[in-house]
Amino acid sequence: MSSIQFLPPANYTVAVELGFRDSRSKRCWSAGAGFSKRWCPRMRSIRAETAAETFGSRKGESLGPNGECDCDIPGRSAPALSNVGNSTNIAWHECPIGKLERQILLNQKGCVIWITGLSGSGKSTLACALSRELYALGYLSYVLDGDNIRHGLNKDLCFKAEDRAENIRRIGEVAKLFADAGVICIASLISPYRRDRDACRAMLPESIFIEVYMDISLEVCESRDAKGLYKLAREGKIKGFTGVDDTYEPPLNCEIVIAPTDGECPPPGTMAKQVISYLHENGFLKA
Amino acid sequence: MSSIQFLPPANYTVAVELGFRDSRSKRCWSAGAGFSKRWCPRMRSIRAETAAETFGSRKGESLGPNGECDCDIPGRSAPALSNVGNSTNIAWHECPIGKLERQILLNQKGCVIWITGLSGSGKSTLACALSRELYALGYLSYVLDGDNIRHGLNKDLCFKAEDRAENIRRIGEVAKLFADAGVICIASLISPYRRDRDACRAMLPESIFIEVYMDISLEVCESRDAKGLYKLAREGKIKGFTGVDDTYEPPLNCEIVIAPTDGECPPPGTMAKQVISYLHENGFLKA
Repeated sequence: MSSIQFLPPANYTVAVELGFRDSRSKRCWSAGAGFSKRWCPRMRSIRAETAAETFGSRKGESLGPNGECDCDIPGRSAPALSNVGNSTNIAWHECPIGKLERQILLNQKGCVIWITGLSGSGKSTLACALSRELYALGYLSYVLDGDNIRHGLNKDLCFKAEDRAENIRRIGEVAKLFADAGVICIASLISPYRRDRDACRAMLPESIFIEVYMDISLEVCESRDAKGLYKLAREGKIKGFTGVDDTYEPPLNCEIVIAPTDGECPPPGTMAKQVISYLHENGFLKA
Repeated sequence: MSSIQFLPPANYTVAVELGFRDSRSKRCWSAGAGFSKRWCPRMRSIRAETAAETFGSRKGESLGPNGECDCDIPGRSAPALSNVGNSTNIAWHECPIGKLERQILLNQKGCVIWITGLSGSGKSTLACALSRELYALGYLSYVLDGDNIRHGLNKDLCFKAEDRAENIRRIGEVAKLFADAGVICIASLISPYRRDRDACRAMLPESIFIEVYMDISLEVCESRDAKGLYKLAREGKIKGFTGVDDTYEPPLNCEIVIAPTDGECPPPGTMAKQVISYLHENGFLKA
């Protein structure tokens, strides 16, 4: 790979704005025009150095002399075409920037925190508190909320059995992409059946799927009834509602259990810290 | 919102590892045990300060006194339930950490770079070169490659007309999530029909959908035939192949056109720099 990729842009002002250091003076640019003063531009140059360091350690097998990808180098044999599911003649395309590089950039490890539990058990509360705590510590996370995804990607799905399974499969696949992007992805959805959750776990390397079970009793969840859904279910206005007329299968071997202490449900910050401790102890909070 | 969210963890060693500064000595911890030395821990403390600063400017409307989310605060009225597509009784859940905060963390703006063009026009090559250049400059991007997504999220779809449209819709929705996460999302897929691309554009705020048209002639693409697909299509072994027996509709008003100069196709680095210039000029490379 050509080393020119890591030189500053030709335009000096742009280079300064992008945080490159002036190698003649060795000093760190404090703030270029228009550059956010809340961020130390030295970070950028460190980032660029880190990137160069990473590239330096790569053999660049998949790159041609002009930086082409493998699929576009004249004379290189055509990539293997395959059929996957219903798609025919497709080829996997590997980019030279992978999960490892993105993790170095973010100084964290991409993973999926899968929060499962009854409606009203506090899944979204934990997801938000966790996202907030991680942000305060400088880590990038993203919440995939079951209901929110039904406003977009999964708006074609209803709540019948096969659509619920497809809902979970798609969220699992998207979570996998986010983890691959280096992001700490927090998926928050009832996901009542063990087989659907296990299918998501099976998509990923074992250790990066972190299942969090909200072990809060149906009585507590129903007494909260934050969305008024239990009431509707008890009145028969919603059919197949988890905990009322559909089953919830608790995980058998999840990574984290959130449960009441002395009959008291833990507050959001405490739940979040429990998960963050797990992430810290298992090396997710560094590259 | 309680300010306790921004205090270092109780465990001093953990706090140091997470990059908090010791306020007594005002010095910057150079590297805690196990902390990557390639990254300056000061970044973490800057990040934490930035986060606190951001939160300080928020009114915390959606948070209870103990940091609960709006849906879980006793006495707070239930959120509005709605029907979206085929999903009934769902509620949008807003997290206190939004796109703005993630953009501050990453010092970039989330957006979607949608690369469209014939098979063999260099879409994947540009996507990878761009991802590499952005990484070298310290920016986080993620490539959604049409073929790769057919290995996972879209493996249930084939190449018939409605499935191609659904393939593009789903990738558009996922790209929207990545942009919301603050990531520079690079979608690379033929996406031959204007209406499908415009539908993805319509999902997003206008200015963050950046359509890149690979204006490379069919003759050039077919002469490359990197995947051997044109040959199969000419032999009638693939039906409905774009450019052979299905149409490609060039964009009418795209943001960037990649085209040959003096009959020469631009090399990957040059194409990537053209896109990066656009990102820079339009403020995407800062928060």
